[in-house]
Amino acid sequence: MAASLPALPKGATIGILGGGQLGRMLAQAAEKLGLRCHVYSPEADSCAFEVVQAKTCAPYEDKAALARFADAVDRITYEFENVPAASAEFLAARKPVLPGPKVLANTQDRLVEKNFIAGLGIATAPYAPVTSSAELKAALARIGTPAVLKTLRLGYDGKGQAAIEKPEQAEAAWQELKRQPSILEQFIAFEREISVVAARGADGAFVGYELIENEHKNHILYRSTVPANISPTLAAEAVSIARRIAEALDYVGVLAVEMFEAQGRLLVNEIAPRVHNSGHWTLDGASISQFEQHIRAVAGWPLLQPKRLGRAEMINLIGDDVHDPARIASGTGWRVHLYGKGEARPGRKMGHVTRVMPD
Amino acid sequence: MAASLPALPKGATIGILGGGQLGRMLAQAAEKLGLRCHVYSPEADSCAFEVVQAKTCAPYEDKAALARFADAVDRITYEFENVPAASAEFLAARKPVLPGPKVLANTQDRLVEKNFIAGLGIATAPYAPVTSSAELKAALARIGTPAVLKTLRLGYDGKGQAAIEKPEQAEAAWQELKRQPSILEQFIAFEREISVVAARGADGAFVGYELIENEHKNHILYRSTVPANISPTLAAEAVSIARRIAEALDYVGVLAVEMFEAQGRLLVNEIAPRVHNSGHWTLDGASISQFEQHIRAVAGWPLLQPKRLGRAEMINLIGDDVHDPARIASGTGWRVHLYGKGEARPGRKMGHVTRVMPD
Repeated sequence: MAASLPALPKGATIGILGGGQLGRMLAQAAEKLGLRCHVYSPEADSCAFEVVQAKTCAPYEDKAALARFADAVDRITYEFENVPAASAEFLAARKPVLPGPKVLANTQDRLVEKNFIAGLGIATAPYAPVTSSAELKAALARIGTPAVLKTLRLGYDGKGQAAIEKPEQAEAAWQELKRQPSILEQFIAFEREISVVAARGADGAFVGYELIENEHKNHILYRSTVPANISPTLAAEAVSIARRIAEALDYVGVLAVEMFEAQGRLLVNEIAPRVHNSGHWTLDGASISQFEQHIRAVAGWPLLQPKRLGRAEMINLIGDDVHDPARIASGTGWRVHLYGKGEARPGRKMGHVTRVMPD
Repeated sequence: MAASLPALPKGATIGILGGGQLGRMLAQAAEKLGLRCHVYSPEADSCAFEVVQAKTCAPYEDKAALARFADAVDRITYEFENVPAASAEFLAARKPVLPGPKVLANTQDRLVEKNFIAGLGIATAPYAPVTSSAELKAALARIGTPAVLKTLRLGYDGKGQAAIEKPEQAEAAWQELKRQPSILEQFIAFEREISVVAARGADGAFVGYELIENEHKNHILYRSTVPANISPTLAAEAVSIARRIAEALDYVGVLAVEMFEAQGRLLVNEIAPRVHNSGHWTLDGASISQFEQHIRAVAGWPLLQPKRLGRAEMINLIGDDVHDPARIASGTGWRVHLYGKGEARPGRKMGHVTRVMPD
């Protein structure tokens, strides 16, 4: 299908599943290209609703609402990977969904994802499936401590995770995750966290942004800097890994692959089958943003080779960081992006700032 | 009032009069800053409606609709200078309107505008008011040919103008403009057309972009390039002219001043009390766009000193230029902006492309 994806004409409508800031910035990129957007989200206060004319506020399981949504749009994409697989398939039977449902099937479950990556011959942290307390203890004996126990589904920003520093903490971690099917991963004492943000077109064209270096605070991305402080050999290998993953998934759109650099090796941590927080710097620091690149891929338009405009830095505005926007906006050299969200709850991503400096 | 303009908080709503591409790009800039927009336009198919949640489709003379609009927003601005002065005053009695009604009073009528500019001691092409055929002939005798006769109000993109190459064409021009009150201007055989796009904050801060050089085709802006090929002395004078105009108008927001360079002198042609087509390159070629700068001024947020990112070029996509967006989008190095307008009528501005090259 992908190879024969027709280019959307002027004024066509892209349906976006999910109403958060990623959906909002995707819609803004599409509108810049003269396309219309229809945002589907279960939450009435979705910030992506604010910037589009057409919206559906309904649960992802509402077949009637999904059918009307599919009828109203020309093509469908999503801003997050936890759209129920059945809903994605329901939609895909009616309109092209990109990236395709095969992508969701391989990335919604941490164990399936890790097996998929390992099956491509790509290194990850040692891991093991855990479905019982006994399995957890056996896995810990093999993998060692420290380690991290993670639920298989719906984890993000550190939710659904428990650190295990010593074997005797195993039972507490198992109870903390409510005895759900989980994956145990060796804790990697990494030198740095990096991500590759890249796009693959319907024609198979692949274009990657330069490597991004990421810092987290409280499991939430705090800062991204580009280019990452990494050897050219490893940088090339990182992009090659992302490309192999994208090709194996017959991917169309932007994806991010998070990796650790540890002892001179790259270990893949996670695939995000969507635009990614660590790619927000591209809004100001690259000749084409990850959002526009994704929309181009989904629209069947040609991808562009991005040009980096300088050393770039992105810092998230979390929770209370967002108050007093006039003051934030006065930072010389920083460009401000706020998402129009209501309450600034702790841990909530409210906006980000970027700056671009001469190389 | 301007000096005490409070900074708008997160989530405040800016009302925009006018629903064309300038309103659309203003709304997109405001939304990037986490502000909401409410667009007021008489035309149901206004392209700015597409990117906002709140809209009013009503004539500019509809007092009830204007009152509801004023109630619904925190601050008001406009994307074009032909909002009826009475409507602007009606709104200004209810919510701050920026730039203020004094600006409209001085820029809606070509003769008032020229007198205002001349009153600041700034050079323009020789001009004379014309209210009769006899006055036109007398003015022509004084100003000489070639000259241009223009209606006092509502002209743009060459509408409401008649060229007079020879004195014997005077009567035909007078009839062509339907014997409306007009202004006769000497035709300037300019070396180049330039414009200054600049912003003035509520606190009086003034920041200008670098000088822009413009080419027109059929009276419609075709291409803008930055920096203009002009001497540093004249460039500094041009910015100083724009600043004097902005200060005399107690201006808050972005304005553009169009000028001719002729025989080593600058002559002001026109003031546009709004963001301007010749400033579209700032979306990609400057560290802050004219649209964001305008919204910051209106919001009472600090202006930023714009940094030019390279030699920039902007070309308008007029009428049929807009077909086959995927092909337009494939131009290496060009960035695409389409306005989401319906019918691609001849002369209609449908979008623009920009590119930024190393200096």
